[in-house]
Amino acid sequence: MQFGPEAADGLAEILRWRRDVRHFRTDPVPPECLARLRQAMEMSPSVGNARPWRVIQVQDAVLRRAVHDSFVATNADAAATYDAAARADYLRLKLAGLDEAPVHLAVFTLADPAEGRRLGRQTLPETLTQSTAMAIHAMWLMARALNLGLGMVSILDPQAIERIFAVPEGWHFAAYLCIGWPEFQDDTPLLHRLGWQENTAPEWQVR
Amino acid sequence: MQFGPEAADGLAEILRWRRDVRHFRTDPVPPECLARLRQAMEMSPSVGNARPWRVIQVQDAVLRRAVHDSFVATNADAAATYDAAARADYLRLKLAGLDEAPVHLAVFTLADPAEGRRLGRQTLPETLTQSTAMAIHAMWLMARALNLGLGMVSILDPQAIERIFAVPEGWHFAAYLCIGWPEFQDDTPLLHRLGWQENTAPEWQVR
Repeated sequence: MQFGPEAADGLAEILRWRRDVRHFRTDPVPPECLARLRQAMEMSPSVGNARPWRVIQVQDAVLRRAVHDSFVATNADAAATYDAAARADYLRLKLAGLDEAPVHLAVFTLADPAEGRRLGRQTLPETLTQSTAMAIHAMWLMARALNLGLGMVSILDPQAIERIFAVPEGWHFAAYLCIGWPEFQDDTPLLHRLGWQENTAPEWQVR
Repeated sequence: MQFGPEAADGLAEILRWRRDVRHFRTDPVPPECLARLRQAMEMSPSVGNARPWRVIQVQDAVLRRAVHDSFVATNADAAATYDAAARADYLRLKLAGLDEAPVHLAVFTLADPAEGRRLGRQTLPETLTQSTAMAIHAMWLMARALNLGLGMVSILDPQAIERIFAVPEGWHFAAYLCIGWPEFQDDTPLLHRLGWQENTAPEWQVR
C-alpha cells in the first residue's frame, strides 16, 4: 500500500479539527458509528499485540449518576487547590459533557494481561498505559472523521470508578469518554481559546 | 468543518496499514517529512493542553551506540525470563531497527510540567503519560500516511536511557522511536503473522 499526498493532508485535517469536546447535543449516536469507533481502537498499536484495554459502555442511569457525582466531588477538590483568581478561572471552564453526551465509555487497562506474553513491557510496564492511550486516540480521530465529538474525562478518582463498576482485579481505570454530536466545531483547543493554557511548542533537541 | 465519508475511510486505511516497523532501508528521511511528523505531534491532545512530551533527535554515533548496547542487554535479560521453547521464539523476532533506521528519536514525559496548570491530572497523573503516547500515535499515523515506517522500542532500561542523555530532573523516558523507509508493508501485525500473539478482540461490555 503506497499512499498518495492526499492521505497525509486528510490526516492533518482530522488532527487539526479534533477537539476535547464537552458541549454535546443529546441526539443519539447510530450503532454503526459506534462500531467504527470500536474498529479504530482495534487497529491501534499495542505492546506485544496485547490490546490491554477493556471497555464498559455505560447506559445504566444509576451508574451514570455515580460517575457524575464522583466527577463533581473530584472537580470541587481540584478547584480548591487553586488560589482565588485561578479558582475563578477554573470554575468557569466546562470540563465534562457527562449530562448531555449520549454515549459513555469507561476504559480500563489490564495490569498484567496474558496477551503479548510480556514482550516489550518487562522494563517499561507503562507501555500498557500507552497502548490504551493510543487506542483512545485512534477512536478520538475516527470520531472526528465521523463528525462526532469525544471528551476525555480524567477529573475522577480512579479507585472510586473501579468500585462503581466493581471491575475485576487488575483492571486499572484509564479514562471516561463522553461521545456524541458536538454543539460547535473549532480548530483551536478550548483551553487555549479561553486563556487557561496557550498552545506551546514542546522542546525538540538535536544531538 | 464537516467531513465527508472519505475522511473516515481514509483514516481507516491509514490505521489498517500502520505497523510497528523494525525492517528499514537506510536511505535518509527528508527534513520536510520530519517537520510533518513533528506537526502531527503538536496537533495531538494533551491533558490541560500541557503538551508534556520532550524529544531528543539522536544523530551522534556515540549516543546511538549507547542506546543500542542498552537494548542488547535489556533484550538478553528479557529473553532469559522465558522457558526454552518461548525463548527460541522470542530470539527469532527482530524487535528493533536501531542499526538501519536513519532517524532516531528519544521521547520523554515531564513528570510535573507548569503547562496545563495541573488541570485534569490531579487524581490521574498518568494522563501525562497518556498525552505523550497519543502524540507518538499521531506521529506514527502521519509517518504511515507519508509511507514512512516507525518502530517504537521499549526493550530498554528507562533509568539507563535517562543517564545516557543526562536529561533534566523530571524527564521520564517514554519510548525510543526508529523512523525510516520500511523494507516491506503489511496490513497485519508481525507478532500475529509470526505466531507470537494473535489479534484478539478486547472485551466491550454494555451495562
